[in-house]
Amino acid sequence: MSSSGPARRARWRLRLHQIIFEADTPGGKVFDVVLLLTIVISLIAVMLESVEAIDRRYHSTLRSLDLVITALFTVEYVLRLICVVRPLRYATSFFGVVDLLAILPGYASLFFAGTQSLLVIRGLRLLRVFRVFKLSHYLGEARVLVTALRASKNKITVFLASVVIVTVNMGALMYLIEGDEAGFTSIPRGVYWAVVTMTTVGYGDIAPQSPLGQAISAVLMVSGYGIIAVPTGIVTVELANARQAITTRVCQDCAQEGHDSDATYCKFCGAKL
Amino acid sequence: MSSSGPARRARWRLRLHQIIFEADTPGGKVFDVVLLLTIVISLIAVMLESVEAIDRRYHSTLRSLDLVITALFTVEYVLRLICVVRPLRYATSFFGVVDLLAILPGYASLFFAGTQSLLVIRGLRLLRVFRVFKLSHYLGEARVLVTALRASKNKITVFLASVVIVTVNMGALMYLIEGDEAGFTSIPRGVYWAVVTMTTVGYGDIAPQSPLGQAISAVLMVSGYGIIAVPTGIVTVELANARQAITTRVCQDCAQEGHDSDATYCKFCGAKL
Amino acid sequence: MSSSGPARRARWRLRLHQIIFEADTPGGKVFDVVLLLTIVISLIAVMLESVEAIDRRYHSTLRSLDLVITALFTVEYVLRLICVVRPLRYATSFFGVVDLLAILPGYASLFFAGTQSLLVIRGLRLLRVFRVFKLSHYLGEARVLVTALRASKNKITVFLASVVIVTVNMGALMYLIEGDEAGFTSIPRGVYWAVVTMTTVGYGDIAPQSPLGQAISAVLMVSGYGIIAVPTGIVTVELANARQAITTRVCQDCAQEGHDSDATYCKFCGAKL
Amino acid sequence: MSSSGPARRARWRLRLHQIIFEADTPGGKVFDVVLLLTIVISLIAVMLESVEAIDRRYHSTLRSLDLVITALFTVEYVLRLICVVRPLRYATSFFGVVDLLAILPGYASLFFAGTQSLLVIRGLRLLRVFRVFKLSHYLGEARVLVTALRASKNKITVFLASVVIVTVNMGALMYLIEGDEAGFTSIPRGVYWAVVTMTTVGYGDIAPQSPLGQAISAVLMVSGYGIIAVPTGIVTVELANARQAITTRVCQDCAQEGHDSDATYCKFCGAKL
Repeated sequence: MSSSGPARRARWRLRLHQIIFEADTPGGKVFDVVLLLTIVISLIAVMLESVEAIDRRYHSTLRSLDLVITALFTVEYVLRLICVVRPLRYATSFFGVVDLLAILPGYASLFFAGTQSLLVIRGLRLLRVFRVFKLSHYLGEARVLVTALRASKNKITVFLASVVIVTVNMGALMYLIEGDEAGFTSIPRGVYWAVVTMTTVGYGDIAPQSPLGQAISAVLMVSGYGIIAVPTGIVTVELANARQAITTRVCQDCAQEGHDSDATYCKFCGAKL
Repeated sequence: MSSSGPARRARWRLRLHQIIFEADTPGGKVFDVVLLLTIVISLIAVMLESVEAIDRRYHSTLRSLDLVITALFTVEYVLRLICVVRPLRYATSFFGVVDLLAILPGYASLFFAGTQSLLVIRGLRLLRVFRVFKLSHYLGEARVLVTALRASKNKITVFLASVVIVTVNMGALMYLIEGDEAGFTSIPRGVYWAVVTMTTVGYGDIAPQSPLGQAISAVLMVSGYGIIAVPTGIVTVELANARQAITTRVCQDCAQEGHDSDATYCKFCGAKL
Repeated sequence: MSSSGPARRARWRLRLHQIIFEADTPGGKVFDVVLLLTIVISLIAVMLESVEAIDRRYHSTLRSLDLVITALFTVEYVLRLICVVRPLRYATSFFGVVDLLAILPGYASLFFAGTQSLLVIRGLRLLRVFRVFKLSHYLGEARVLVTALRASKNKITVFLASVVIVTVNMGALMYLIEGDEAGFTSIPRGVYWAVVTMTTVGYGDIAPQSPLGQAISAVLMVSGYGIIAVPTGIVTVELANARQAITTRVCQDCAQEGHDSDATYCKFCGAKL
Repeated sequence: MSSSGPARRARWRLRLHQIIFEADTPGGKVFDVVLLLTIVISLIAVMLESVEAIDRRYHSTLRSLDLVITALFTVEYVLRLICVVRPLRYATSFFGVVDLLAILPGYASLFFAGTQSLLVIRGLRLLRVFRVFKLSHYLGEARVLVTALRASKNKITVFLASVVIVTVNMGALMYLIEGDEAGFTSIPRGVYWAVVTMTTVGYGDIAPQSPLGQAISAVLMVSGYGIIAVPTGIVTVELANARQAITTRVCQDCAQEGHDSDATYCKFCGAKL
């Protein structure tokens, strides 16, 4: 950390950085929790504003709350810019952009009516919750999950490619078979229907009417119903491996591995691990 | 157990306690089964009462049945209060509150028409079925399940937090994209739609109409369809571990369990197994 | 096998028994396949008859086909009764009853119009397909599956009991919260809705309208979406165990187990298995 | 490779074959990626043409694009025929037929209006994406997946047969119970409903109305919801096995692979690993 200001100001910035950006000090912990609560309150306000009946009664209260939180978020954003060593890097990072976007609609709503709906972008700030999680024992869990998902990335890609190919072809086929009455007015709509069906969501807004169409979609349903077994199996196997990889040590005496994370003696030769 | 009454009364209370609260004596077993049957009959009566056509024909029969069962449950509640050592602790416990709530609407319905619907709270008494299960060989199974779920608690929390963040953001996004005609009248409704879609329930009461909305929801569907693999993988791996931990041997030296099936030495104290 | 008739008739019955009841002779194999095909043809006929447009055109053809197959099934049923050692035991067994029920509606339809719909009971005869499967290498697979499902029986019971308790309570709660307009006209309908929602089927014929009802059902959806992980985990772990138990042999030299089914030498000490 | 032409022409054909059919040369790689992009563009054009509003505005542009791509695909098809050693074998192979079908509707549309919809068959050409995947590290992943699915083939067959039997019988039963108003107008429609319900798709276009029908379908839903655990468990176990088999060592004596990670001797020939 190379602060160019005098030593005292540097210490002040360092302290601020610890509170705002780091999460393993008491101050940082409190800051993170307060920030999360503010984000949640802000989101509830935006949500309630979007409900017409509530907005009509509490419009001014909710608008004031919006403005107060916009002010708070602005202060926070400026403080982040000040205490960080490379402000530009933060400002162009994902979280920096989200933090900026979370305050802009607040000011825009002062001049243009209706733009407060854009405040919903604050929902992305909820991602900060993972920072709070990261603090404690969630770290290991998250690492296992991420390792597993990264290891299954290629297989998941193959799986997703298959899903895309099947839905595109089935959607086009159903467009040819079913008429406009059933809702298959274009190929993209057919593909949308195929996704809705294969993922077993099944809205029912588009549904096959002809016997042939129903027979084909029955096959698609059973496929979708069964194929979910593939990614599930992939993730499960990778999770088991990721977990094992993390919890495994090798005995220095007999060089055998496979010890549990809570083992203190080698289970094969009895030597101390 | 410190009973303040004379020895004979104490023995009587002890016997009653065994029957009502314990489940490993023949009397207790019979009591539990009879109680469960009464709860089921009571629930069926309340359910049938709520069906208008049936209620019109058999109103008085069903009302009488309600009152008889209310009387029985009252007797049971009083007996529980009598035979338990600390009545207040039982009365304020979860099951104590449920037991009380299960009889109150019965008396209320004598004075206020319509309150018998509240008798449905008796459904919570069905939870006592797990006490009957607990008796026999279900104990081990339940222990494996609970161990696995407790071990995956943190990962499940991360998973649920992700689901909440995704649904909130997708719901808000769709509120901005889709108009009122598609049913997205407010952000909370959008979030409700996102939950309905991501969990692959798909009622179809709210469904995207615009091509962009359909494209985005297709992504959400495939995500929801595939992401279920994550909790499934987590629970499977933890179940496998919980099962293995429980089915293995105990060290004769340090009395700790949790050894793998291929272990020849205790991993805690190094003694030969 | 203690046949009371003369030796020649006994041999004839034995041969017939082999063809009809056993599946590992060429004759038995041919019989099973022909029988399955006849069942499938019969089912297709009954299905087509139920489609009004087709029935109007081909009514007499389909009726004749029904009668021919009824005659064939009758002959088969009589032959089964003749060649089996204990006819009464067969006649009262599950398959015996199904075989009888599969021919009765055929005769009834001669006298009472409309009873041919009951011929659909022939669908149960499809279960014989598993006999054909049983013949070959499906035996091992089925054994693994059955072993796994039997081992997870208790845990599955606990799981199903939880599902029942949750749906009953949620159905009753939603009946109280939502009015008749949303479709919650009685508690049983509420429970039906809860099942439709928790299993992620989501017809949408009954759907919550009030914000509170939607919030509660969102919780139910996420529960149903996530809880499926539990039975999946259970079955997966038991399948892994069942498979291992079946494919495992012990080395006679070093007494270690864990060998694959295709191993010819012990992987630990190199001795011939 | 036995080319009958002069050596120079042979070398030219060989080079062309490398580019078009093989994927591990730089030229082949570029060809595959360009081909895939052309297929995707072609599909987007066909999809947009099927949307009435877009087709009305850009009809001639999209038609021209169709014709250009048809011409390109024709050139590609002819080149494939030329450079392959046995043109007939290619022309009658799956990909050969798809490649031909992908150009025919383009020419047909010149003479018959409306036949351009048949161009959607080009969607099948997307399958070539797996050739690109095959190139790199996706090979191992795909092999694990295919091995696992092949190993679980028999169990999956048993599972699918059960699903068919259950849906046929439930569909027929519901046809008898529910009337025409609920949408159960014929047994095939009932079977279609059973598939929609058991796979948890749940369109809601056909839904039970009577209490008995709803009770039975609740059972079907819970079955469908829980039974998915079976194929998931099967695939997971087989994936774990396939992965283990592939990630292990090869015996230096008998060159066979498939040894467990904890093996010290070859399980096939007994040699030390």
